[in-house]
Amino acid sequence: VSGHIFAEASSDEGMGKLARDGFEPALLRLISPWLAKSPPVVACGMVGSRQGWCEAPYRAVPCTPLDMSAQVAAPTTDPRLRVSIAPGLKQMQPADVMRGEETQIAGALALMPGYDGILCLPGTHSKWVHISAGEVVSFQTFMTGEMFALLSESSVLRHGMQGDGWDEAAFDSAVADALSRPEKLGARLFSLRAEGLIAGLTPGAARSRLSGLLIGTELAAAKPYWLGQSVTLIGAEKLSAAYARALAPQGITAQRLSATDCTLAGLSSLAPETEAAR
Amino acid sequence: VSGHIFAEASSDEGMGKLARDGFEPALLRLISPWLAKSPPVVACGMVGSRQGWCEAPYRAVPCTPLDMSAQVAAPTTDPRLRVSIAPGLKQMQPADVMRGEETQIAGALALMPGYDGILCLPGTHSKWVHISAGEVVSFQTFMTGEMFALLSESSVLRHGMQGDGWDEAAFDSAVADALSRPEKLGARLFSLRAEGLIAGLTPGAARSRLSGLLIGTELAAAKPYWLGQSVTLIGAEKLSAAYARALAPQGITAQRLSATDCTLAGLSSLAPETEAAR
Repeated sequence: VSGHIFAEASSDEGMGKLARDGFEPALLRLISPWLAKSPPVVACGMVGSRQGWCEAPYRAVPCTPLDMSAQVAAPTTDPRLRVSIAPGLKQMQPADVMRGEETQIAGALALMPGYDGILCLPGTHSKWVHISAGEVVSFQTFMTGEMFALLSESSVLRHGMQGDGWDEAAFDSAVADALSRPEKLGARLFSLRAEGLIAGLTPGAARSRLSGLLIGTELAAAKPYWLGQSVTLIGAEKLSAAYARALAPQGITAQRLSATDCTLAGLSSLAPETEAAR
Repeated sequence: VSGHIFAEASSDEGMGKLARDGFEPALLRLISPWLAKSPPVVACGMVGSRQGWCEAPYRAVPCTPLDMSAQVAAPTTDPRLRVSIAPGLKQMQPADVMRGEETQIAGALALMPGYDGILCLPGTHSKWVHISAGEVVSFQTFMTGEMFALLSESSVLRHGMQGDGWDEAAFDSAVADALSRPEKLGARLFSLRAEGLIAGLTPGAARSRLSGLLIGTELAAAKPYWLGQSVTLIGAEKLSAAYARALAPQGITAQRLSATDCTLAGLSSLAPETEAAR
């Protein structure tokens, strides 16, 4: 049955940890019980980067998010394995790249046939993507999630935002602040620490305000993407909900798709028809 | 002789590493050879924070940077030790704090008697300070140095900026970009990575551009401080030079003082007159 998950497995062995000849053994550790019928393996993301298993050179936009003929076969020694890797996308001006998101985008277009408009994929490196006639026209990346992780876990601000408390009102007003005066971000960050020290700012409110400031700053810079457009969010549930909440006061009612659904739909579209996949 | 350095010592044992009862032993390990005549010890910075040796509560601006009567005596057991700690400064609205910089500011005012204008102390947490009639009127903190360290050493951008290459032209144009469109910072960061991957951006140019983007963003938000004002920079030589270079095209010719000179002048002003200090 196509499009159903029969089994799942994951590990933390990826591009950051593996040498080139470590990818095949790592994959076999994970999926060898499934290989009786030699099903095709399709992969996307950093596995196709220059430091990955096998480089799958970026395709240049404008183009469809995936192209079966551009799949790159990874070198394998185990006869049960046939592995193909999806290339990422690049944009020359302004320079930008993605790896992995192209597969989620293809999945989103499979789930919403004929969709024209904007996709937003919030996350470590949030992507805003302009889709027209089934192609990625342009895209832009923001390091919002990575900045949040660095600032909340590794900077001086970490002292004032421990725990997982949350304060919707603090988030909302920070988004509004950042959208109206995005140039003040640098000045607003340290005040989270100072207000914790001298004005009783709670850790939950500080975390929420940091999130709101960073998402609001992203929205300010991404305005040419979303202003007056249809927007669909593809991401983890909580994060997508935060982006939807931030966009609502700007008159944008964003649709939401699950990142997992999009990834699976995208990978499925790349799987050659075989007995195992049918 | 007052104001001369007879000996120097330093260690990495500070607030981040020491429990409250660890400060005195750590100080003794460092300076016990100097204690024959029981000279006074004056201290400033995080040693006076809530997690430090002994809390020295913030003084509220507007006020002079230092006040001898507000010094806090640290509890000691060794009879040769008399340790006093300078309090930091706080500003209630917008909330901000400093610890250590107040001593450098006092030193700067000792070195430039009657100075009215702006002091900028670039660093991990850059401070902009408005001085009038010998008092700190207001100040604002930017996390520029910490952001540079996090982004260049711990984020995805680190892959494209190893080494210590430098490119003045890349720095200058990034400062100009950030000053004219500070709201675009979030969008410009990831392009450093993308241009490294697909457009041949060199590590030196990437580092310089990151520095220029962050300093330019700080200058954009700190404009109410420096526009049309006298500015004196207090900091490490290379960093002050970068700030002076960034300010020059805005019509600001910043004076420069050495951070070490200012710190020593500030601490000296706090040392009670004793045989050892005379």
